[in-house]
Amino acid sequence: MKIKLAQTRKQKPDFNNLGFGKYFTDHMLVMYYSNGKWGEPEIVPYEELKLDPCTNILHYGQGIFEGVKAYKNDEGKINTFRLNDNLDRMNRSAARLCMPQFDTKVVFDAICELVKIEEDWIPTAKGTSLYIRPTMIANDKALGVHAAKNYIFFVILSPVGNYYAHGLTPTKIMIEEKYARSCIGGTGECKCMGNYAASILAGEIANQKGYDQVLWLDGNYMKYVEEVGSMNIFFVLNGVVVTPMLDGNILDGITRRSTIAVLKDAGYKVEERHIEIKELVDAYNNGTFDECFGTGTAAVISPVGVLHYNGVDMVINDNKMGKIAEYAYNTITGIQTGKIEDKFGWVIKIK
Amino acid sequence: MKIKLAQTRKQKPDFNNLGFGKYFTDHMLVMYYSNGKWGEPEIVPYEELKLDPCTNILHYGQGIFEGVKAYKNDEGKINTFRLNDNLDRMNRSAARLCMPQFDTKVVFDAICELVKIEEDWIPTAKGTSLYIRPTMIANDKALGVHAAKNYIFFVILSPVGNYYAHGLTPTKIMIEEKYARSCIGGTGECKCMGNYAASILAGEIANQKGYDQVLWLDGNYMKYVEEVGSMNIFFVLNGVVVTPMLDGNILDGITRRSTIAVLKDAGYKVEERHIEIKELVDAYNNGTFDECFGTGTAAVISPVGVLHYNGVDMVINDNKMGKIAEYAYNTITGIQTGKIEDKFGWVIKIK
Repeated sequence: MKIKLAQTRKQKPDFNNLGFGKYFTDHMLVMYYSNGKWGEPEIVPYEELKLDPCTNILHYGQGIFEGVKAYKNDEGKINTFRLNDNLDRMNRSAARLCMPQFDTKVVFDAICELVKIEEDWIPTAKGTSLYIRPTMIANDKALGVHAAKNYIFFVILSPVGNYYAHGLTPTKIMIEEKYARSCIGGTGECKCMGNYAASILAGEIANQKGYDQVLWLDGNYMKYVEEVGSMNIFFVLNGVVVTPMLDGNILDGITRRSTIAVLKDAGYKVEERHIEIKELVDAYNNGTFDECFGTGTAAVISPVGVLHYNGVDMVINDNKMGKIAEYAYNTITGIQTGKIEDKFGWVIKIK
Repeated sequence: MKIKLAQTRKQKPDFNNLGFGKYFTDHMLVMYYSNGKWGEPEIVPYEELKLDPCTNILHYGQGIFEGVKAYKNDEGKINTFRLNDNLDRMNRSAARLCMPQFDTKVVFDAICELVKIEEDWIPTAKGTSLYIRPTMIANDKALGVHAAKNYIFFVILSPVGNYYAHGLTPTKIMIEEKYARSCIGGTGECKCMGNYAASILAGEIANQKGYDQVLWLDGNYMKYVEEVGSMNIFFVLNGVVVTPMLDGNILDGITRRSTIAVLKDAGYKVEERHIEIKELVDAYNNGTFDECFGTGTAAVISPVGVLHYNGVDMVINDNKMGKIAEYAYNTITGIQTGKIEDKFGWVIKIK
């Protein structure tokens, strides 16, 4: 593959105060699709994309993305986590948005090469990592609603801390009763740009009311619990772990899958099924709502301390991280950073 | 306002063979939002936008657009049509996507100025016009799902012919039975980018089966007829004009509004209400499905000759443009081009 190194390097940010998605490394990966095929991936200096104002990504939103993380341990070994699963999911998102499939092996190798080049950008403190953002956007220079014939695939890297500014302090989540994110036959399971744009207003209203994010109900009946937009959601009800099933409306989260696997492996009972909001309210009233937490690449495992529904703040586990969430967090981050043996085959050694 | 004219001018395309959205004029309008307010609009040479690859429009699709047309008559007089209504709608789309409101008067005047500068680009043949595309995109340079603090508003112009390559020949439309475009609480009434991306796959499948576009059913019940994505839809059933009501799921089309007004003015009975797909099938079987046509700025009035549902091609009005569609087409294009008196106050004289 072609590699063009940057002539100058940026000053690195304070690795103890990274936040999320604010700083980007010196290089990026780019790959162009035209005439029915992908070109070779190239590593180039991080630079602005020059887009004709008629480019269809800027009008019809035909774009998808992924989020993956890389970790460096104290001995300088670099890992990434289930990158292959993220790239497979990206191809599924591409199919739903009528975008071309790419060779996951080629992109996998190119991303590993990019991470190696940027290894000095990988923070090592607890909770930090190098966030990898693969993105694919339509790149036709014409208006009109149809599948583009040209695309740009690019990958940028960002050293990150916790997604939520308050770290592992439990979040406050508002169950959204007015706006909907997805319905059957829509793009709910797809990591496409439009899903996120559609979610912003409800999130901002929740913020104004003092909540961190919203938990979506299904768009068809406004009855079944779905996801948090940046996280899948888990509940522990009377000792049983339950999470919404993959019904086409929610993201098939890689951290969701990992959480289910490590909890089942530890002997917990885990159910993937439809969950009515009424079931949660009943559990809360009965005193059997033990825990609530979200899972996602950016958020990892994020405890939920308050769930607001129908005017009531349901305070869960005394607004503390529960033991099952803590077990999942410690196990998954332990595997990701190489501190716990990876018996699942998830860790990919980059260096 | 600031105007920076292009030093060189492009060669103009063949005005008899324009297609839709392929050619763009020498200048564009740009206006930036930052620090909580809009800057002044500027007319600048048409040029590429330079976007950092982390810019949030390229990840979360927080963007909206509009479509308006300008017309030039044989004496060189230039009109546009209900531009104020499109700009009002754009502000409504902005509110739903958590984007800032803009001063419609300022943008209105700036667009008129831009059209005047580009008057040599306005084609005059029947069915042609200058398509005006106002667009607003998020412009923060950071990842993370929330409302951006920076935006770019831009307007580009394209001389266009008919939206459909076959002009006023009736289109073949497939009623979509699997995929959904919108549901209650979603962004269906909003001219946001993600709605269009989500629609592409169904459209491509329809194309492969020999249909021009799909007619969407509501995402909640897959039962009520909604819109065609690039057009609102009208039916004439037993002499009565019916069109889906504005229920939050469909676009409040400006050409839809104009069509309702000119048809009511001509004494036709027009009903805006929920329309079950079953009602259309029954009307077809009873011989009372008189006409079908779509309305939109790009498509104007586009007759529908075939509606496909549940394995059956319903051939409407012998696959010819019906008299009500033709009346609406002639009246609206007549008003737009100044050939018919505008008693509705829709025409805006630019020059």
